[in-house]
Amino acid sequence: MIHPGSNFKTSSILNHKDLRKEDFEFISSIDTRWRDMDAIQHVNNATILSYYETVRVEFLGRLGFSLVRRQSNGVILASMQIDYFSQLSHPSKIDVGCRITRIGTKSFDLCSALFSELSEYPISAGKFVLVTFDYINQKTIPISKSIKDSYLPFID
Amino acid sequence: MIHPGSNFKTSSILNHKDLRKEDFEFISSIDTRWRDMDAIQHVNNATILSYYETVRVEFLGRLGFSLVRRQSNGVILASMQIDYFSQLSHPSKIDVGCRITRIGTKSFDLCSALFSELSEYPISAGKFVLVTFDYINQKTIPISKSIKDSYLPFID
Amino acid sequence: MIHPGSNFKTSSILNHKDLRKEDFEFISSIDTRWRDMDAIQHVNNATILSYYETVRVEFLGRLGFSLVRRQSNGVILASMQIDYFSQLSHPSKIDVGCRITRIGTKSFDLCSALFSELSEYPISAGKFVLVTFDYINQKTIPISKSIKDSYLPFID
Amino acid sequence: MIHPGSNFKTSSILNHKDLRKEDFEFISSIDTRWRDMDAIQHVNNATILSYYETVRVEFLGRLGFSLVRRQSNGVILASMQIDYFSQLSHPSKIDVGCRITRIGTKSFDLCSALFSELSEYPISAGKFVLVTFDYINQKTIPISKSIKDSYLPFID
Repeated sequence: MIHPGSNFKTSSILNHKDLRKEDFEFISSIDTRWRDMDAIQHVNNATILSYYETVRVEFLGRLGFSLVRRQSNGVILASMQIDYFSQLSHPSKIDVGCRITRIGTKSFDLCSALFSELSEYPISAGKFVLVTFDYINQKTIPISKSIKDSYLPFID
Repeated sequence: MIHPGSNFKTSSILNHKDLRKEDFEFISSIDTRWRDMDAIQHVNNATILSYYETVRVEFLGRLGFSLVRRQSNGVILASMQIDYFSQLSHPSKIDVGCRITRIGTKSFDLCSALFSELSEYPISAGKFVLVTFDYINQKTIPISKSIKDSYLPFID
Repeated sequence: MIHPGSNFKTSSILNHKDLRKEDFEFISSIDTRWRDMDAIQHVNNATILSYYETVRVEFLGRLGFSLVRRQSNGVILASMQIDYFSQLSHPSKIDVGCRITRIGTKSFDLCSALFSELSEYPISAGKFVLVTFDYINQKTIPISKSIKDSYLPFID
Repeated sequence: MIHPGSNFKTSSILNHKDLRKEDFEFISSIDTRWRDMDAIQHVNNATILSYYETVRVEFLGRLGFSLVRRQSNGVILASMQIDYFSQLSHPSKIDVGCRITRIGTKSFDLCSALFSELSEYPISAGKFVLVTFDYINQKTIPISKSIKDSYLPFID
């Protein structure tokens, strides 16, 4: 399913820095907290992953995945590739977009990016490779129809 | 300075559970994050202190204190007494109130409480004893006029 | 049960600053992490609560409480009173002591303190009021024999 | 500079899962904390980045970089690629290895991996692209001789 209004770029040649808010149909906001800053006085890179995570959990919740506890219908993170383009300070309000850009049999790629109100360019962007996972039985499971229906690749 | 519309209770006999949103002139909101939950699947008690902290830093910022970095005009936490009345889940939106209820020469008490939209009772409430502190020279400093002007004790 | 070799102080008059390592039969170590520091470049006060928590969970584990997940045999934090006496930097190795200083029917007090290798005085000390709690049925439960057997009050 | 005793693999074809402790000359340990676990009851993926960070800061400290505060001689994270191979529980003791596998003019790659005592395979491994950065003047700086001297690529 290709969304007509979306920005067409192939996943293979995608430069994360080219991502814009308009590339995402799903966007949710995060407010920074004072403690998100580290000793260097910018928002810590690992904390930014918690921003991605909160919005990813919300996005996946709409696709029928519950991550409130160990359940049979979950996802687990296999790998990720994250780019950091600019530093972030507290206080800031951040928009985080999510988009499924690849589907396999038991895994899929979720492209995600952070935007502030100060610039059209992303502060950070990343690709998360997620495996559909049954936490009760600790084994992988086939990806759901809801994931397939949300598939929205970047196309040349 | 006693605020006429405020709920009059003495600090000494104050039961934190009796605090209501109306007791606070300064209130700011926090959105929970997925990672705020711990292995018990409720928001972790130490994370709740980061909620208090974010709002306290905002409140103190309005009184002229900068906590973005080590400066001569800061505060440092000397002690705190925190009550937890009910468990909190993600996702929730929380209102956090702040109020200066005691002033000394180099320290003051900040009363703070967390409220969800689900109940008039606080989820948690606490008293933070803060010392005005010069982080450059690592020494205490007299409390400012801005702190004195914001003093709003609970009165019987 | 009063431990003969312990430092005898009544809980009521106890000044946290008087606590010493010798007051604790149970001590476990924590190594600071870089991210424990906040924008002020000292270890954050909420992070210090995670140090207390890690050692408290270990201590309670020896008394038969599992806090790996929601279980019928748990504890929940009702309130705490924490004093911060000096600032802490990364990297440091910290010793954290735990001691049960009051027992009730469904709650008990756990006194805890942090010590560095640099001083005999505590960096921080606190009293945690813990309620024995069944997370499955979400209700309080009577305190166990193991808690009673570990009761070690401060006596005048 | 190729270290004779090292495991020779090219960076380009390197599979992170093939990394072993022996591939690292610099290894430091991290103890998990209870709060490192999230609602799924395993160590959270963002928290694992704080493990990498603590050891990376220690490693870079030996090469003359101070990350205690904003200084002229720092590094900033530009991007990272992280693989997660198995889940991690608290309590665990983890060994984290660091190795500089690429040097450029103003950036270098740091390969890092986490090992438990339970297996020779890594729990997680990653490549961090670090830019040498002057935080005072907010600009990139040439990589130091100490970085060049520690260069230890994987070779076919």
